[in-house]
Amino acid sequence: MGNSLVLQSDFGTSDGAVSAMYGVANTIDPTLRIFDLTHHISQFNIWEASYRLVQTLPYWPEHTVFVSVVDPGVGTDRRSVVAKTKTNHYVVTPDNGTLTHLNQQYGIAEVREIDETINRFPKSENSYTFHGRDIYAYTGAKLASGVITFAQVGPSAEEDIVLLPMFESRIEGNSVKGNIDILDVRFGNVWTNINRSLLHDLNIQTGDMVKVKVYGELGTILNKRLIYARTFGEVPVGEPVMYVNSIDKIGIAINQGSFADLYNISMGNKWFIKITAYDR
Amino acid sequence: MGNSLVLQSDFGTSDGAVSAMYGVANTIDPTLRIFDLTHHISQFNIWEASYRLVQTLPYWPEHTVFVSVVDPGVGTDRRSVVAKTKTNHYVVTPDNGTLTHLNQQYGIAEVREIDETINRFPKSENSYTFHGRDIYAYTGAKLASGVITFAQVGPSAEEDIVLLPMFESRIEGNSVKGNIDILDVRFGNVWTNINRSLLHDLNIQTGDMVKVKVYGELGTILNKRLIYARTFGEVPVGEPVMYVNSIDKIGIAINQGSFADLYNISMGNKWFIKITAYDR
Amino acid sequence: MGNSLVLQSDFGTSDGAVSAMYGVANTIDPTLRIFDLTHHISQFNIWEASYRLVQTLPYWPEHTVFVSVVDPGVGTDRRSVVAKTKTNHYVVTPDNGTLTHLNQQYGIAEVREIDETINRFPKSENSYTFHGRDIYAYTGAKLASGVITFAQVGPSAEEDIVLLPMFESRIEGNSVKGNIDILDVRFGNVWTNINRSLLHDLNIQTGDMVKVKVYGELGTILNKRLIYARTFGEVPVGEPVMYVNSIDKIGIAINQGSFADLYNISMGNKWFIKITAYDR
Repeated sequence: MGNSLVLQSDFGTSDGAVSAMYGVANTIDPTLRIFDLTHHISQFNIWEASYRLVQTLPYWPEHTVFVSVVDPGVGTDRRSVVAKTKTNHYVVTPDNGTLTHLNQQYGIAEVREIDETINRFPKSENSYTFHGRDIYAYTGAKLASGVITFAQVGPSAEEDIVLLPMFESRIEGNSVKGNIDILDVRFGNVWTNINRSLLHDLNIQTGDMVKVKVYGELGTILNKRLIYARTFGEVPVGEPVMYVNSIDKIGIAINQGSFADLYNISMGNKWFIKITAYDR
Repeated sequence: MGNSLVLQSDFGTSDGAVSAMYGVANTIDPTLRIFDLTHHISQFNIWEASYRLVQTLPYWPEHTVFVSVVDPGVGTDRRSVVAKTKTNHYVVTPDNGTLTHLNQQYGIAEVREIDETINRFPKSENSYTFHGRDIYAYTGAKLASGVITFAQVGPSAEEDIVLLPMFESRIEGNSVKGNIDILDVRFGNVWTNINRSLLHDLNIQTGDMVKVKVYGELGTILNKRLIYARTFGEVPVGEPVMYVNSIDKIGIAINQGSFADLYNISMGNKWFIKITAYDR
Repeated sequence: MGNSLVLQSDFGTSDGAVSAMYGVANTIDPTLRIFDLTHHISQFNIWEASYRLVQTLPYWPEHTVFVSVVDPGVGTDRRSVVAKTKTNHYVVTPDNGTLTHLNQQYGIAEVREIDETINRFPKSENSYTFHGRDIYAYTGAKLASGVITFAQVGPSAEEDIVLLPMFESRIEGNSVKGNIDILDVRFGNVWTNINRSLLHDLNIQTGDMVKVKVYGELGTILNKRLIYARTFGEVPVGEPVMYVNSIDKIGIAINQGSFADLYNISMGNKWFIKITAYDR
């Protein structure tokens, strides 16, 4: 049995684009197991695509093949690559920054550039705007099903892959400073790029009170004493709480409310958070 | 071959949460068949989760394992359970009322509390906010694939499960009275908790005219003579009709329109419907 | 191993309707491979359902069985049919125009009317409003899994199938005129019914400048000299471009913007496009 193929895109699910990718993958191997990461990445938002990969990939079995198609440069001279992570997963993607978070968190072991003269859906040579179907799903399905090996993807890509700029979270005195990496869109929780371990370096533990400052382009939008709790339900409904999210980073939430909506917060490298320990 | 695993949540599909659950299930058994019920339950709406289970579960083969994660109390001391229904399906869920409709309609045969010391994704002990991935999908996948038996879920839970309050539909004179249990959200049809059989007890049959009163917090919003038809197309486009819905309960619709939108109706135990037979 | 079953509907994915269809299909064959085309067809929009089939079906393996349920006439006397296309795919659908684009582009080889006395989910005889579950998914699963042959669907349907009116694109002098067949909803690109070959008949090639006029109910909304490029990224961000879409038809887009939103364009047979070659 082959490995699973997991698809991500900014295509949405209202038209036939995703299904055409599934169809092509089925023509390669009608026993292939195909799943979705999400197809609701904000249009052209490479950062978000990069984040969703780091959020999910480690929970899948080794050798799972991910296809990520957020591709504003489709049909131009940006490269198409397959990366092998140090966790032994594969990612088929345009080389446009989509590998940023995986590279930072787990490391990329090897990258190969897709040889489109062989790894391209037959008779698609006049199609320049749907590489998700013609190249990425096609190549991903071949790799997942074992029709080609990783080496048969194409030549090893010696050049550096494209990486988006990232702010590294860090300790400053008795504080830790980081970015708002992403929003937990459905619930409005704010997810930072601060690892739990950094807090513990400051000897901050669950149950402690901390001072949390959130500031961005609109100035300081929160500057408040909060509890660092294990879960939302440890504060009353409607109250803010600092917690460790599901991928071991610090988050801020409102119990059964939306922190992001309440304060009109967005994500990205212009939104900062500073967490300060109280003297004990 | 194992049984199918069917996932429900209020997570939406815009981020990586659902895919992480799929990944964990795949690590248990890479041949497991995994499907979705829906991930668009309104946030924290346990009633809706309960309803969607009763709407779909009986159409799946026996021994199918459902995982339902609408879990405002995640990480608190609410129990995590697996229920076996009298229809021979399994439901993995927080014990927070999600089993209400299944219990009322089909009956719960047995409940076991998940022993989280063994049925928990390895190395997730510091994760308190995503039991959908760490406990429910993990345990559901083990049960569906046969890695554990139902008895190995954990100890039999003798105590009563949590049930939400329900209004029982009933005959009053020559009328039948019930609740608006749920909205058919996409089409705006109103689904009541009145079984077709109650109407037939009043000798009301398709083709008959009935008097339908819908009333709720906003007062009476409909009080009208309607036809009890078999399907929408038996009245002109834009006209209201009473019918039997796909799970044998009485519904009110507007042919090719939205009854719920037109009258600003919501669901729940404050919305009533009264259907009265005419003398013949 | 059986063939795949691919489901399309206007049901959305927020309730249990789609999952009930999956459940029924699993009761027929618990090894059946089931996928989605989309469930977000605009409510009752048969034209859109017809288009999504032609956009995706040819990318799936032969003998794949599609189920399409956009069915405003559910429960009335419209026929339920299974069509076999000349590409050797099957489509299970109400006979209401859903086969229009497939018929025009690939041709329908044979049509059979579903014999509902045998091809209907057992005990569903009192259900008149969910043929997607009771008849279409049920029959599609039986056909895909080999439980029934195409001949066992029901009698050959000699009468003409229902087809929606279509405007045929055509050359007029040194111009080609067509309809806006559909919108690429997520990105706002406009997809016409003009085949690439018609442009080439006028000797228009990528890299050429063309005059593009888009006009509809609101009058002329674009009348502009555009480049006919291979892909979006060949014009600056925010600029319009004419290109060949992923199914070999002419499209108009704005690079990283929404052409349809900007000009408030819709689809259908009241929206025209005229492309004129410049003298060279």
